[in-house]
Amino acid sequence: MIFNKPKEDDEIEKKIVNSIRNLGLDMIDNANSGHPGIVLGASPILYTLYAKHLRVNPDDPEWYNRDRFIMSAGHGSALLYATLFIAGYDLTIDDLKKFRSINSKTPGHPEYKTTPGIDASTGPLGQGFATAVGMAIAEEYARSIFTTKKGNLVNYHTYVLCGDGDLMEGVSYEAASLAGTLKLSKLIVLYDSNNTTLDGQTSKIFTEDVAARFLSMGWNVITVEDGDNLNSIDNAISRAKSFTDRPTLIEIKTVIGKYSKDEGTNKVHGGPLEKTDLNNVKAKLNVRDIPFTVSNNVVESFQNMIKNRIKKEYKKWQGEYSKLDSETKDEFTKLVELDLSQKVNSIDYKFPENNIESLRTTSGKVLNSIASNNKLLMGGSADVSSSTKTYLIDQKDFSSNNRQGKNIYFGVREHAMGSIANGLALSGIRPFVSTFLPFADYLKPAIRMAALMHLPVIYIFTHDSITVGEDGPTHQAVEQLTMLRSIPNLEVYRPCDANEVIGAYKVIMARDEGPSVIILGRNDVKIQENTSVKDVSLGAYIIKKEEKDLECVIMSCGEDLQTALDVSEKLTAKGLGIRVVSVPSIERFKAQKEKYIESLLPKKAKIIAIESSNSYSWTQFTENDKYVISVEEFGLSGKKEDLIKHFNLDTNSITEKIEKLLK
Amino acid sequence: MIFNKPKEDDEIEKKIVNSIRNLGLDMIDNANSGHPGIVLGASPILYTLYAKHLRVNPDDPEWYNRDRFIMSAGHGSALLYATLFIAGYDLTIDDLKKFRSINSKTPGHPEYKTTPGIDASTGPLGQGFATAVGMAIAEEYARSIFTTKKGNLVNYHTYVLCGDGDLMEGVSYEAASLAGTLKLSKLIVLYDSNNTTLDGQTSKIFTEDVAARFLSMGWNVITVEDGDNLNSIDNAISRAKSFTDRPTLIEIKTVIGKYSKDEGTNKVHGGPLEKTDLNNVKAKLNVRDIPFTVSNNVVESFQNMIKNRIKKEYKKWQGEYSKLDSETKDEFTKLVELDLSQKVNSIDYKFPENNIESLRTTSGKVLNSIASNNKLLMGGSADVSSSTKTYLIDQKDFSSNNRQGKNIYFGVREHAMGSIANGLALSGIRPFVSTFLPFADYLKPAIRMAALMHLPVIYIFTHDSITVGEDGPTHQAVEQLTMLRSIPNLEVYRPCDANEVIGAYKVIMARDEGPSVIILGRNDVKIQENTSVKDVSLGAYIIKKEEKDLECVIMSCGEDLQTALDVSEKLTAKGLGIRVVSVPSIERFKAQKEKYIESLLPKKAKIIAIESSNSYSWTQFTENDKYVISVEEFGLSGKKEDLIKHFNLDTNSITEKIEKLLK
Repeated sequence: MIFNKPKEDDEIEKKIVNSIRNLGLDMIDNANSGHPGIVLGASPILYTLYAKHLRVNPDDPEWYNRDRFIMSAGHGSALLYATLFIAGYDLTIDDLKKFRSINSKTPGHPEYKTTPGIDASTGPLGQGFATAVGMAIAEEYARSIFTTKKGNLVNYHTYVLCGDGDLMEGVSYEAASLAGTLKLSKLIVLYDSNNTTLDGQTSKIFTEDVAARFLSMGWNVITVEDGDNLNSIDNAISRAKSFTDRPTLIEIKTVIGKYSKDEGTNKVHGGPLEKTDLNNVKAKLNVRDIPFTVSNNVVESFQNMIKNRIKKEYKKWQGEYSKLDSETKDEFTKLVELDLSQKVNSIDYKFPENNIESLRTTSGKVLNSIASNNKLLMGGSADVSSSTKTYLIDQKDFSSNNRQGKNIYFGVREHAMGSIANGLALSGIRPFVSTFLPFADYLKPAIRMAALMHLPVIYIFTHDSITVGEDGPTHQAVEQLTMLRSIPNLEVYRPCDANEVIGAYKVIMARDEGPSVIILGRNDVKIQENTSVKDVSLGAYIIKKEEKDLECVIMSCGEDLQTALDVSEKLTAKGLGIRVVSVPSIERFKAQKEKYIESLLPKKAKIIAIESSNSYSWTQFTENDKYVISVEEFGLSGKKEDLIKHFNLDTNSITEKIEKLLK
Repeated sequence: MIFNKPKEDDEIEKKIVNSIRNLGLDMIDNANSGHPGIVLGASPILYTLYAKHLRVNPDDPEWYNRDRFIMSAGHGSALLYATLFIAGYDLTIDDLKKFRSINSKTPGHPEYKTTPGIDASTGPLGQGFATAVGMAIAEEYARSIFTTKKGNLVNYHTYVLCGDGDLMEGVSYEAASLAGTLKLSKLIVLYDSNNTTLDGQTSKIFTEDVAARFLSMGWNVITVEDGDNLNSIDNAISRAKSFTDRPTLIEIKTVIGKYSKDEGTNKVHGGPLEKTDLNNVKAKLNVRDIPFTVSNNVVESFQNMIKNRIKKEYKKWQGEYSKLDSETKDEFTKLVELDLSQKVNSIDYKFPENNIESLRTTSGKVLNSIASNNKLLMGGSADVSSSTKTYLIDQKDFSSNNRQGKNIYFGVREHAMGSIANGLALSGIRPFVSTFLPFADYLKPAIRMAALMHLPVIYIFTHDSITVGEDGPTHQAVEQLTMLRSIPNLEVYRPCDANEVIGAYKVIMARDEGPSVIILGRNDVKIQENTSVKDVSLGAYIIKKEEKDLECVIMSCGEDLQTALDVSEKLTAKGLGIRVVSVPSIERFKAQKEKYIESLLPKKAKIIAIESSNSYSWTQFTENDKYVISVEEFGLSGKKEDLIKHFNLDTNSITEKIEKLLK
């Protein structure tokens, strides 16, 4: 449906678009840093989206049932901030002047929780796209489980603005392929197609037929030939919203840096315009030449467009929400308030009769128990759920036919799995994802984003060391534990038995300030007598006291803890005073008071660590790396027992080594 | 062209295919570990490829001009080893019996340099596919520069066997998209399409039209409906070889675990067959039921097919190679022998007049100088060459029109860039690749493969810390240095000025046992008086001696070294005995003799480290993490100077902190 708009409407629309451009340029010029190309090229897209479609309330930017918008092309932050400012979000001209300054509300790339109206941090290309797929999954799931007689309390679209760079990244392909399979029809991607990236024209690097590719993946594709034509963009979004079977990609052909002397080239991508060019552009935009000004008419018109469109619906939703029966409301409020922490009081877990169980098996049982009492927990694996034991047995599978399933089949797509988890967490869902520890590498960029945004994603990584055995070095983690432990805001747990697995899940479930990793082996281990569920929260505790004057503390964790205990027994028999400290989480241990840390690791004792991984995690506790019994090279294919011997990780070799160290 | 084969040919072919299946199953049964599904499903593909097409000489498995074959679905190792054994590679029945045993020639996943006939290590899905793209680029480049009057000395195809899992991985998409853009027509991917992955049917996770997707990316696609029909596979490969404009995907529909009771399901993917099932399959295969036996007729026939096909060509190539003029031969021999180390004797580099230059700028000049004297060095960036300064100014761009270009535009595809570099290195090309340090995350899985295979790939990572400034935390590395330094076989260099940049390149170029990373800042730094080109190879050396009795050694590197010197000056003025040690490479420093290490870091002195990154890399030298001046949280968007202040990395704050530590 195309309206015949009065001419004055056309004019004010053009004015708003140009005011966004103008403010964006002012910000970049003032900061002497930023990306003018996308500001000039894509402002008609952002204007149309916010003015005509996006169901948001700038006065309540966190309204749960708002449409989501992710600027996957995060370098377009100036464009987004300028739009948000004029739209009436809690931003001032002064905030815009502080663009890219320390502690401002307008950082270099969009940051979640820093600026009102920013639904996700973006910047590393492809992440925003994949995160949006997570949001769209969350919407389908939440919509299906929270319905009232009057309709759905959850019912929103997720929009993405992305560029050529986003679409070249593998993570966006993975996410798009899954979105097509899952028929996420409320996902709409606005593709700012300008044939230009930082290093030049896409003709050199990206010649594929993007539209055909998305069609092949089960998407709808709409093309807008003139990215300056607001009606075309408007109509395309309207059509996209009308589809109910597939996600939609709207390819909008734009000109990067439009109106600049360098328009259409990479020269206008990543640095401020020269002064003369800036002035010329401003003249073409027909805007006032006093920096950081925008006419009242523009502000009022834009804000009214949004308000008038959403007012009624917003009020209606608030009304229905307040009238919810208390049971539904309790649960729904957790979703709405992104209240992702959970006190796990009881876990339905029976210890095996012989007291022996693999850590991944325990984890599977505990996870199943928690999931059965938590509607908002969902997740899955990158095609190895049968090995990571993360399948939720009593739950359904999330699919295009069943939106109430809590098991997500991510496919062999570790990276997208990580980014999708971020989208779930941003939408009030508590996500868990899993693969083998060495393949944590594949989703590292997504883990980093979770840590940056403080999202409580749970990563379940099994097959944790060379003890994987036969599959060989590509499947044996050596350096991954260090990689994970050194990420800020991320807590890594490597429990040694069922007690500690339970303890770890309790701490992880209660935590909502950031992501957590639980590391699990695949081999059978004994459930220890002295392990503690409770003390996992301290990160470390004494599991075996010294029997003589303390000479040496052995720190260890995971499957290695049994070795540490065996070694300590041998050393004790030789008359040495050996203490064993179980360290399920280095991060939590380091967060304890100095006094507690010293009570475990007295200065007079030699500190030794045992972990079948590299030494980097442990030298902070030991004198140097000689005191870490570790694996400093890649693994080998072979039977577990042969490998343990090969890497001198057997009890005898370690006992001998420690004896020497203590001499 | 379809031949009318005599019936006995048909029979022997079938026998060979089933013998491969049979041996593969024996290996898995004997090891009690492995993947029978692909052995039973894909052996007709491997048979046809080796018997009819692959130009290889089992007696000279490293013949440079051989066709390459990469088993991207690395879990199909038993299938590959069985094929190689019957084909006549240097493998014995005893080797097959040792499948998946320690130190065998038949590890759990294919490993480069471990088994004759293995062109690349594989296992983590998607890697093999992308590595093959690198091999195809290497072939185009080498073919174009090494031609004789009689023709091309380099002229081979690169084949890949991949499964659904490989194609779901983002890295394979990235590589495929680039392969299409570059029109790498000598790349042929055999897609073992069986609709099954570890966790079940692909209908749940992977519904895209793969053929249409590859067409959209500029590939040819051929479909073989019956993966057991050898003629169809043969004809498809013949057709693929005839194309000169695009790479080809041959989708071959197979049945996973064919003949097993669980054929066509994921149950037969990843574990040995039950005994009864195994026996039944063997009966259907019509093979002898004594394990590890294969008839002479099968062995001879298969080996003759290969020999007769390649004999003449192999001989001709050796003849031409021996007759090369000495100049061409010198260079060509380096390629043929994968001799990737280079002694860089002189570098055409002029120090800037004011002695100030950013490290990335110096790096760009040095790299350009080296490239101008090394035909076999090529590389590029994931779309940020103008920022990482890795563009080779006097060289051409590698493209579908110009195969002699040494500048590769990888597009915004960090992960594929890493894997493609591995393919180049495996083909005798010395590759360099570059992006910003925080985005090293994106290619971590590929870096790991390079380290595993000991490939001398050069990673040039710029924008190395929070000093990136305005772009904010997504663009500021904090944990990446630790991630890289903790990878076995990888050497990381973080030089502090032009001298050390030159020194680092010299060591890196001379090294061919593994990959190297050079870490560079983007800010201007002073070229120091006392830095050493030569001593970079030692990893660390004294850059400023103590003026009094030694109390404290400050270790530092990169842009932080200037801060260390400034701090030492202040502390010296306060009467303290301070030594500064420049540490361009921790790995190399640790590889020195104990005596040298202690001469730099005497036990009596307090050791302090300064690096604007996290502390994990340095606690191996210091008492604990309190003695590391570091950044333990994510960065911020803001001016560099403001951030340095915020993170207490300014000279005054550090000086104060060290004074306290020394008290």
